[in-house]
Amino acid sequence: MDAQITSKILVLLFMFLTVSSSHNHEGNNKHYKPCKRLVLFFHDIVYDGTNAANATSAIVGAPQWGNLTILANQSHFGNVVVFDDPVTLDNNLHSPPVGRAQGQYVYDTKNVFTAWLAFCFVLNSTDYQGSINFVGYDPLMVKARDISVVGGTGDFFMHRGIATVMTDAFEGNVYFRLRVDIKFYDCW
Amino acid sequence: MDAQITSKILVLLFMFLTVSSSHNHEGNNKHYKPCKRLVLFFHDIVYDGTNAANATSAIVGAPQWGNLTILANQSHFGNVVVFDDPVTLDNNLHSPPVGRAQGQYVYDTKNVFTAWLAFCFVLNSTDYQGSINFVGYDPLMVKARDISVVGGTGDFFMHRGIATVMTDAFEGNVYFRLRVDIKFYDCW
Amino acid sequence: MDAQITSKILVLLFMFLTVSSSHNHEGNNKHYKPCKRLVLFFHDIVYDGTNAANATSAIVGAPQWGNLTILANQSHFGNVVVFDDPVTLDNNLHSPPVGRAQGQYVYDTKNVFTAWLAFCFVLNSTDYQGSINFVGYDPLMVKARDISVVGGTGDFFMHRGIATVMTDAFEGNVYFRLRVDIKFYDCW
Repeated sequence: MDAQITSKILVLLFMFLTVSSSHNHEGNNKHYKPCKRLVLFFHDIVYDGTNAANATSAIVGAPQWGNLTILANQSHFGNVVVFDDPVTLDNNLHSPPVGRAQGQYVYDTKNVFTAWLAFCFVLNSTDYQGSINFVGYDPLMVKARDISVVGGTGDFFMHRGIATVMTDAFEGNVYFRLRVDIKFYDCW
Repeated sequence: MDAQITSKILVLLFMFLTVSSSHNHEGNNKHYKPCKRLVLFFHDIVYDGTNAANATSAIVGAPQWGNLTILANQSHFGNVVVFDDPVTLDNNLHSPPVGRAQGQYVYDTKNVFTAWLAFCFVLNSTDYQGSINFVGYDPLMVKARDISVVGGTGDFFMHRGIATVMTDAFEGNVYFRLRVDIKFYDCW
Repeated sequence: MDAQITSKILVLLFMFLTVSSSHNHEGNNKHYKPCKRLVLFFHDIVYDGTNAANATSAIVGAPQWGNLTILANQSHFGNVVVFDDPVTLDNNLHSPPVGRAQGQYVYDTKNVFTAWLAFCFVLNSTDYQGSINFVGYDPLMVKARDISVVGGTGDFFMHRGIATVMTDAFEGNVYFRLRVDIKFYDCW
């Protein structure tokens, strides 16, 4: 065995060490490239006592000073909202939905609009079949907010990642539209 | 060093490359074998105003058109149910429980029975000690539904996986029994 | 190539095999060392109808036999509490907060005090910027309880781990303080 082959083996070993240590991901480098990426929109219409036909969400919990048709004082602190919202590929509420966003959000701050989100996307299109589970903190007044993708099923089997949420539009307390940029970093 | 040893090293290196790339799990293969598997049942008896002694769950949130003893119209949309249900090894409600299923489910669709689940199994038996955390979308009318196993403690330290949920039996809106086939793919 | 180099290569290969098999974490060894660790405290003051100025949390869901200012009978079973609590580095409520704990807990047992937790820490200090998402079972009467860290953002990008929760102090049903020992085992 000549020196050339030996050095090639050592180079391969060195590459392994590098890959292995990056895979242990104990470094500080957060500039990972997503292994899969999806940008989707969802549309939430909160029930306000008058819009039963169109509403896609309803207040189901409120603090003692609140009620179930108007979001509460103090930045809606304590309101629990359950939703079943259409998911679309673009920002048009009337585009054909590719799935549903289902779950709950909880307004959880007294002096600023922030929510804690726990929900899933259930996708049912020619491109994707499966569900994606999200949890995270959503400070509504910040332009881009990161939440966690904690799991998935079907085409998103065991996936994990980060979703960047942006408020794309809102009308009063009743309609809002979120743009969700889903970046998977663990794809299986 | 003779050619035989060199080739053995190269074979080992090749095996590493294979293992390493499968561990990156960026392929399309979803036919992974679970590293641990458990099939368990849990039994939910919803409080209806008359069954306080037996009930294992209670409606704690409802939309404006609902109440706290009868699941709401429109596929129970908006009902939040908190539960503490016995977990058994077989489908008999009266079998000795091996743990508890605790958490909440939220009915989150207006025109079909679907729920968003967020709960844990707390197992306390000679076989298993620890907790398993689940979240996910549960379309009740589908025979087998996959949800995410997002973490665990004790014997399930850091585990992730998929749980396949099936409705094993139900009686009206008050009793239902779920079969949960828990497949861990990341076992630590 | 002499025998010395060959044996060094074999040692390196052996080391790889060891690292690789530990990284597959399919063994029974749960004595992993955290790749990052944080000990923090958070302080919860439940709204009781009289303490609106100081309260950091509010009951927003209750079973039919409960209400929104007093935690319910039967170990508070069914109470859903939304919180926005200060996070501090030590056990002093009046220390400068390094972040907020936000989310919900659900009392989910009829005959003992246990809760199901789903919340995040949002840290905003010179040391850490980012969020950490938790879910898990919390038997309040047990000294040390493990819950799951299911994801994170910012400095906690994609992190997973275990948090050990201890009740550090409580006063009646209104104030309690939790010590959270966050051990990340998957750091990226």
